Amino acid sequence: MFFASDNWSGAHPKIAESLTRFASGYAAAYGTSDHDKLIEAKFNDMFEREVAVFFVATGTAANSLALASVAKAGGVTFCHYDAHVNSDEGGAPEFLTGATRLFPVEGDNGKIDPEALDIAVSRFDVPSVHHGRPMAITVTQATEAGTVYSLGELDAIAAVAKEKSLPLHMDGARFANALVALKASPAEMTWKRGIDILSFGGTKNGCWCAEAIIFFKPEMAEEMPYIRKRSAQLFSKTRFISAQLEAYLENDLWLELAAHSNAMADRLRAGLTAKNTTRLAWDTTANEVFAVADKDAVARARAKGAMVYDWLPPRDMPHLLGANETLLRLVTSFATTEEEVDQFIEVV
Amino acid sequence: MFFASDNWSGAHPKIAESLTRFASGYAAAYGTSDHDKLIEAKFNDMFEREVAVFFVATGTAANSLALASVAKAGGVTFCHYDAHVNSDEGGAPEFLTGATRLFPVEGDNGKIDPEALDIAVSRFDVPSVHHGRPMAITVTQATEAGTVYSLGELDAIAAVAKEKSLPLHMDGARFANALVALKASPAEMTWKRGIDILSFGGTKNGCWCAEAIIFFKPEMAEEMPYIRKRSAQLFSKTRFISAQLEAYLENDLWLELAAHSNAMADRLRAGLTAKNTTRLAWDTTANEVFAVADKDAVARARAKGAMVYDWLPPRDMPHLLGANETLLRLVTSFATTEEEVDQFIEVV
Amino acid sequence: MFFASDNWSGAHPKIAESLTRFASGYAAAYGTSDHDKLIEAKFNDMFEREVAVFFVATGTAANSLALASVAKAGGVTFCHYDAHVNSDEGGAPEFLTGATRLFPVEGDNGKIDPEALDIAVSRFDVPSVHHGRPMAITVTQATEAGTVYSLGELDAIAAVAKEKSLPLHMDGARFANALVALKASPAEMTWKRGIDILSFGGTKNGCWCAEAIIFFKPEMAEEMPYIRKRSAQLFSKTRFISAQLEAYLENDLWLELAAHSNAMADRLRAGLTAKNTTRLAWDTTANEVFAVADKDAVARARAKGAMVYDWLPPRDMPHLLGANETLLRLVTSFATTEEEVDQFIEVV
Amino acid sequence: MFFASDNWSGAHPKIAESLTRFASGYAAAYGTSDHDKLIEAKFNDMFEREVAVFFVATGTAANSLALASVAKAGGVTFCHYDAHVNSDEGGAPEFLTGATRLFPVEGDNGKIDPEALDIAVSRFDVPSVHHGRPMAITVTQATEAGTVYSLGELDAIAAVAKEKSLPLHMDGARFANALVALKASPAEMTWKRGIDILSFGGTKNGCWCAEAIIFFKPEMAEEMPYIRKRSAQLFSKTRFISAQLEAYLENDLWLELAAHSNAMADRLRAGLTAKNTTRLAWDTTANEVFAVADKDAVARARAKGAMVYDWLPPRDMPHLLGANETLLRLVTSFATTEEEVDQFIEVV
Repeated sequence: MFFASDNWSGAHPKIAESLTRFASGYAAAYGTSDHDKLIEAKFNDMFEREVAVFFVATGTAANSLALASVAKAGGVTFCHYDAHVNSDEGGAPEFLTGATRLFPVEGDNGKIDPEALDIAVSRFDVPSVHHGRPMAITVTQATEAGTVYSLGELDAIAAVAKEKSLPLHMDGARFANALVALKASPAEMTWKRGIDILSFGGTKNGCWCAEAIIFFKPEMAEEMPYIRKRSAQLFSKTRFISAQLEAYLENDLWLELAAHSNAMADRLRAGLTAKNTTRLAWDTTANEVFAVADKDAVARARAKGAMVYDWLPPRDMPHLLGANETLLRLVTSFATTEEEVDQFIEVV
Repeated sequence: MFFASDNWSGAHPKIAESLTRFASGYAAAYGTSDHDKLIEAKFNDMFEREVAVFFVATGTAANSLALASVAKAGGVTFCHYDAHVNSDEGGAPEFLTGATRLFPVEGDNGKIDPEALDIAVSRFDVPSVHHGRPMAITVTQATEAGTVYSLGELDAIAAVAKEKSLPLHMDGARFANALVALKASPAEMTWKRGIDILSFGGTKNGCWCAEAIIFFKPEMAEEMPYIRKRSAQLFSKTRFISAQLEAYLENDLWLELAAHSNAMADRLRAGLTAKNTTRLAWDTTANEVFAVADKDAVARARAKGAMVYDWLPPRDMPHLLGANETLLRLVTSFATTEEEVDQFIEVV
Repeated sequence: MFFASDNWSGAHPKIAESLTRFASGYAAAYGTSDHDKLIEAKFNDMFEREVAVFFVATGTAANSLALASVAKAGGVTFCHYDAHVNSDEGGAPEFLTGATRLFPVEGDNGKIDPEALDIAVSRFDVPSVHHGRPMAITVTQATEAGTVYSLGELDAIAAVAKEKSLPLHMDGARFANALVALKASPAEMTWKRGIDILSFGGTKNGCWCAEAIIFFKPEMAEEMPYIRKRSAQLFSKTRFISAQLEAYLENDLWLELAAHSNAMADRLRAGLTAKNTTRLAWDTTANEVFAVADKDAVARARAKGAMVYDWLPPRDMPHLLGANETLLRLVTSFATTEEEVDQFIEVV
Repeated sequence: MFFASDNWSGAHPKIAESLTRFASGYAAAYGTSDHDKLIEAKFNDMFEREVAVFFVATGTAANSLALASVAKAGGVTFCHYDAHVNSDEGGAPEFLTGATRLFPVEGDNGKIDPEALDIAVSRFDVPSVHHGRPMAITVTQATEAGTVYSLGELDAIAAVAKEKSLPLHMDGARFANALVALKASPAEMTWKRGIDILSFGGTKNGCWCAEAIIFFKPEMAEEMPYIRKRSAQLFSKTRFISAQLEAYLENDLWLELAAHSNAMADRLRAGLTAKNTTRLAWDTTANEVFAVADKDAVARARAKGAMVYDWLPPRDMPHLLGANETLLRLVTSFATTEEEVDQFIEVV
């Protein structure tokens, strides 16, 4: 009954197996081997266009270096208030972009409100050196609230980015979960919507450590090799990333794992709704579930081995919790089993 | 016949196996799991004292963040002219320390000359804000020249560090190779010599990706958790590092691999000395061999599949090469076989 | 009729005269001359304790380097939403502190609400590397809204700082105006309230360019000489700052100028209240006045030479403006005359 | 008898007078006033082409921000070993460029050797992310050794810059002294030689504080307004810079002052050569004189009030000093008098 986070899981057996398969032999280091290039080429196929691909060590690195690639003096990046980049990256986006600023924008359900975004950007979009100047917009898909931007919602954000001539970045730490939820193609959910740069996350979805920055306009990536090296994010044995990604992408394993993870979340959602000690705090569609729960019930469940985190209610939901209630975040992963879900529903 | 670098190898079978073994189940993320703590405790045993251990993604990150932990405004770090940190890290040490400076010091055989070091440090060790101020000394063990500081040579460097009250860092990207060459214990080669911080490298010696920063005075590491996070070097599934290191340290596999690698270099050294198309450029004791070779012989060897790099002669050896000669760097690894060595000796 | 800003004025005649008086002769450079030390000693007298004084070039530099002196990895500084440091310094606080973050806190009248501050700080004051960690609190006195924290209000902020063990900085770009408005002594408005570091501004109050960072605990300033030099803020001919400050402090000229400036603002406030084309947007006590004005009246005044800026209404006052109304900011200075004020009142 | 440095002088009477003249009245702040624009236009005339002009607070800021305008990840700037930027700016060039690196190049008489430069740049000019990549070349005119690059010598440096497509910066802290020594026009000594960016220094030559960055291709300066603001180098009352420069440039006062300063250095050179207790260490042509002197003679001169600095012999002149000899640096300025010089010659 582990629902703490999807990074509490290990790696999918096929990922582990691939690492074993690639362990022998020699290959050029620092991302220059044939196999690295082969994997990069798979991203071209997946996204139905030529892309530039850069492996990095962590999702935080992917987001931070994506923004670093468009950084400028006095730059301001617009994100949702609860975006991972704003709340959980310990200053890395600021540090690795050379001290640019994040500007949080409001919006329900973890999604940036396009009107609020337009107002926020406009405040900085003036010919003045004093206030800072717009540099990028970043959306998280799936969001930190477990929700997923619809294609139309992405279009609305992209319209602001286009009007303001700003690069648009997507934090795809849970890219596969969002994709499966939307039943969209990778291209449809990214560059066809106006996304310029994607943090493509594999770690939360069954890899050990596989994060990539994808540029949909390769010419935007010219500085990236130097930016990545300067940030100490260029692996020497890049094969260990390629090996994971080969298995991850093979026969759409990645989508299968995300579909499983989302299905487990569906099962959780159904179960929690049916119980009278718990209810859903809000609707989610990806692999995160937020539930209001009776504190005693939660204590009982924990006593029986359930691993779940209490969560801070969103700032715009001050009355979410009743007496003796707490907010739980539950995250499913490729490794979550029906038994785990059912057992949790039972004990809570 | 792959002698390009030790990071062209993959991973040792036992490392791969360990990753498979740890792939299932759940564990706390971000370095807080029991298993992570278990591995950290093994470092205490290995070094015969309590140490603070921080996993990071690359050797460049280990070096850069080690220096970041002692960084200050206007700080200057003293290193050998050919140190990896000075020559091959693309500005990462400067960037990740918040813009401090490296100051190269001369010395034969890739080793810092203690007298030159003393003079260099003294130049900056004055009460003035204009010139910068000493911040750290860093040695590479084994060096980039394939040589190894003797314990006495490390003492001489440490004496300067002590006299100037400077923290002393060791870049141990090839730590195991040096240790085996010296037949010293980890403690003898580090804190017993006055080393304060160590970049402990496992990647070049059979891991996929396993680098750690070791603080021999844990109180010096208080800022490190924040420094590491800010630099996007905190893995979420740290288990994948711990799993590698468990196998790496188990039954001294790491020393066995380094011993093999050094032995293969010995075999290369003997073979190259015996040939009349090649000679050793200088003596080395770890797993790097530098050879002056006839260009035609090298071309022939390459035509038969040998993968070796031409190398720039050191600045203090302007007359190293004769007519039609080139300098080669050959690196052996855990994966190098006697057959590979013998075949190369034959074809060169 | 120039009310654009107090930095549109030049320098007070006595400041200019002092520069002429000190123009000849020789003095040690880089802040080491006897005269520099003499001026620094005057700050000891003024603040009734030993302080450490650092001249810098701009108010932005004073604020940024004050924060740099307490910066740490992942650090977060709490300020009012409309603080100059947050709105008007073009990313300098982030850049010069090595990429720390500003976190804006709400509060009426341009003043930080102590409860909101406590909540905001508490959110970051947890043992986690992910969210960033509290580093400092900064208040602006007088505020950007023309208001002045009472001594009791400063105490309430300081109580949070003390409870959270955070250094407390005051942006005193208009320090003298606040002091005069409160009829307090420099000591009473600063370290006796718990202020640790002060940006002492002379430029807006009659100097050409005279900004200083004052540390009330000199031991907190140990790194400052290096921080200042690294940021290119160490003047060579520091005498030109000392000369200005000698005249500025002599016979309390600085307080006299601020009193005049505040009195001119009082006159403006009275005049604008009496007119039926204008009204005060909110109460202010220092040398900034915010007025809601009829757009036609403003256009007429501008046609007759009035120089005033339109201002963005505060986010918490969405209904401030009626039809055909605009918000004006009017700033008085040492150079403002009664005639200018009366003429503006007449034409608006 | 003050020969410590040209920044020990105050300001020329005409500079002080101009500050008094401009002290009254109002002018737009932050460099937007008519007068600021008028002064900027004078630079167009002076340089016989359209230039972009940015005032900053210190020479260190001018150099650092000039380099920041061409900075890139992993960037390396080539300078002379003894360049001010390398020896005396306390890490500011590294810090304000976002952590790029300076690479010192050898050369006699304080001048970069063009061949050594070509070799150094070529070492970095390879398609690799590991070593850093060339970003700029910077020359100091007049040099720190008191010498002046001839126009031909500048051409040789510029040829390397052109071949390598690198921007070429000139540190002109003593620009006027060099210009007068060469009898060249400002255009001839800068853009006609291939200089792209100039640090134009007025402070050492009679201003209180007047430093400007000049871009000879204004399109290279597009980012500068933001870079300057972010570095806290945008003065609010820019009039105080413009006022100084108006007097400085009026009727070629600046050249007159530099000519005087150089003439005083000539007088020193002649006098020191004639004495048997002193001799010139090497030939200089601008306002710095380096003399080998008998230590007893120096002690006697100091006892009589002479203010001169001992200097470290250049690394390539290890045998410069005989027994009981020291190296002195003597700097003249606009304020140096014939009497001072003669008196020093007499007492030394």
